[in-house]
Amino acid sequence: MTNLQEMGKKASAVKFVLQKMNKEDKNRGLLLAAERLVERTEEILAANEKDMEAAREHGMNQGMQDRLRLSADRIGAMSEGLRQIAALPDCIGEVMEEFERPNGLKIMKVRVPMGVIGIIYEARPNVTADAFGLCFKTGNAVILKGGSDALESNKAIVNVIRGALEECGISGDVLQLITDTDRKVTIEFMKLKEYVDLLIPRGSAGLIRSVVENSTIPVIETGTGNCHVYVDKEADPDMAAQIIYNAKTQRIGVCNACESLVIHREIMKAFLPQLKKRLDAHQVELRGDEGVREILPDCIPATEEDYGKEYLDYILSLKTVDTVEEAIAHINQYNTKHSECIVTENPETAEKFLNEIDAACVYWNVSTRFTDGFEFGFGAEIGISTQKLHARGPMGLKELTSYKYLIRGNGQVRP
Amino acid sequence: MTNLQEMGKKASAVKFVLQKMNKEDKNRGLLLAAERLVERTEEILAANEKDMEAAREHGMNQGMQDRLRLSADRIGAMSEGLRQIAALPDCIGEVMEEFERPNGLKIMKVRVPMGVIGIIYEARPNVTADAFGLCFKTGNAVILKGGSDALESNKAIVNVIRGALEECGISGDVLQLITDTDRKVTIEFMKLKEYVDLLIPRGSAGLIRSVVENSTIPVIETGTGNCHVYVDKEADPDMAAQIIYNAKTQRIGVCNACESLVIHREIMKAFLPQLKKRLDAHQVELRGDEGVREILPDCIPATEEDYGKEYLDYILSLKTVDTVEEAIAHINQYNTKHSECIVTENPETAEKFLNEIDAACVYWNVSTRFTDGFEFGFGAEIGISTQKLHARGPMGLKELTSYKYLIRGNGQVRP
Repeated sequence: MTNLQEMGKKASAVKFVLQKMNKEDKNRGLLLAAERLVERTEEILAANEKDMEAAREHGMNQGMQDRLRLSADRIGAMSEGLRQIAALPDCIGEVMEEFERPNGLKIMKVRVPMGVIGIIYEARPNVTADAFGLCFKTGNAVILKGGSDALESNKAIVNVIRGALEECGISGDVLQLITDTDRKVTIEFMKLKEYVDLLIPRGSAGLIRSVVENSTIPVIETGTGNCHVYVDKEADPDMAAQIIYNAKTQRIGVCNACESLVIHREIMKAFLPQLKKRLDAHQVELRGDEGVREILPDCIPATEEDYGKEYLDYILSLKTVDTVEEAIAHINQYNTKHSECIVTENPETAEKFLNEIDAACVYWNVSTRFTDGFEFGFGAEIGISTQKLHARGPMGLKELTSYKYLIRGNGQVRP
Repeated sequence: MTNLQEMGKKASAVKFVLQKMNKEDKNRGLLLAAERLVERTEEILAANEKDMEAAREHGMNQGMQDRLRLSADRIGAMSEGLRQIAALPDCIGEVMEEFERPNGLKIMKVRVPMGVIGIIYEARPNVTADAFGLCFKTGNAVILKGGSDALESNKAIVNVIRGALEECGISGDVLQLITDTDRKVTIEFMKLKEYVDLLIPRGSAGLIRSVVENSTIPVIETGTGNCHVYVDKEADPDMAAQIIYNAKTQRIGVCNACESLVIHREIMKAFLPQLKKRLDAHQVELRGDEGVREILPDCIPATEEDYGKEYLDYILSLKTVDTVEEAIAHINQYNTKHSECIVTENPETAEKFLNEIDAACVYWNVSTRFTDGFEFGFGAEIGISTQKLHARGPMGLKELTSYKYLIRGNGQVRP
């Protein structure tokens, strides 16, 4: 417990140094960290091997093991990630607004770092370098709590990065790792409000729920995506099949994958057999309502629960509607406010859908898989926000910043 | 409990209507509500009298009674507040950014309402009309939980406003009031995450703490202001005295009042007697460290606790420093990140202070009392945020909004 307080104090102290640091010094730190990660690959791989051994002993499943495993290539990618972050523009200090009041006050709104950011994440050790890079670039101190499965890997990565920073004369306290794996410590971390300005959970729905319920620090919720594609009666069937095929099968375990198809009754008969054929290539399991099952008799009946589910698997739920209004109502009821798509050739229908769907990203004739900081051109991504406060959708560097007002006058007092 | 769920469902349903409502319809609702409040003054005053009677019976102190009391004038001011909100520009639908990606995706970032906003506040019934006006103007449904002392007044005000909205064909569900005064219900409200997108507490430090600790809904923390004025060695003494006098005494019970004076040792001897004379007009109690007490021997010794305190009273703590760096470190340690001021004629010293102080508003030669949405020209204010997420400093209409991305394409899929 005391330990966390001390980490908080160190981060708080160093944040004032970081806020003043110029972009050249920050970039020097990022580039040297990138270099040292590659140079010290062996050391990181040895630590990772300890985690892998424990994982095998505990019978961790293959998918999880794959996410935990490091290789020279994966360390190279981490390193390249830091180089790319260094190459991005520095937004700290940017004047966001500037105006003068009738009483002569000159008010300037300036972009500043958040201060101290906490990140709680799960198995993938590459998040360690990535989260550090984004926070450091934006002048934030960061305290990381990674998954206990990846503890040795994370310790090694943090050790290398801190060493590189210290070589540049930068305090290693800008990057601290919580190594205590006791769950109580994690809960305590979520309440370190005195020192931490923002907490970002990255991982499973369960982790995110726990953070939202326990944290007294402001949280940005990331993640869960129950994303829909609505195929309108005026859709181009080939385009619709192409988009659904991509959104459903290009990568199944991600939050911007399509989980549900909403389809206009008038186009179903012509369209569904063509779609099924396409999805059969990946043996996608279809779960539909009565309307769908009239056309695809082998389709499994969909339950109420199916429509609320993020499968992250080769499964797709299907819902029949008679109007675009019904489609919008269905999606607004079941979605997680992440990414939704309409396929139609009718611009009026499309605009209605774009305006009335409540989600971070609403697409017209585009796969939902594009909800991503890199695809949006942000050059980086810390996660996809599904809340409405502060940031919505893909979060890049600017989303890790706050602002302050500087007010210059000549003795004004309030009458 | 069921009641809250129902209120949440109603607010959620109506938010989709609100999001589509054009500005003329919203303004019509605001203006009719303003008119009906004045017309039904007697009814509101009768309800307020019930609250006042109970307050007198319970021995509520005079200050609190004054805040609770309504009059024809105060109802007139509420009404005028709604008219002013109607006159403000509508920011919903504003295109905040627009860009095209190399693959042809056209991405547009558009301002949208938050959805459903919850506000928990204390005694003053005028907040009821004010909070409704700001939320409604920005297309948000609102659920209010006012203080139990003001229950009858709040019920009357809400009743009048809902009546006016319904006359305009707008569902009264856009404004709902929780009338159950059981504390358990308030705690339950803080967890109504399924339906409420944002929770704003307005009131005492205790109320805000309770919301931060219990809420699972994203919160914007408002309020506490331990604001400092730093008088540099190169300050104009008359200007400094004027600013401190204004910031300390113009209104003592507000969050942007000055609570602490930080003073450079080199200017103390000449300046403090002059300042004391000025503050004596309001019998301001001074609590200082050794340095101060050498010059003002009658000054009460300041404790560590004094420096962390928001007095909201005619009390001022004083701290001696030898450099601007020491002033900055002291303020960054004790402040609540609200409003801080430097008085100096030296632009370099001023810029150092402006850049290195961590607060929502940092002033150079200006009273801290200007931290206010109206003074900033926002035309309205829902509170002063002291957190860094989403909004910092005075919050006007834009701070009650979120955004979404609309992405238009022609069949793009992710490779």
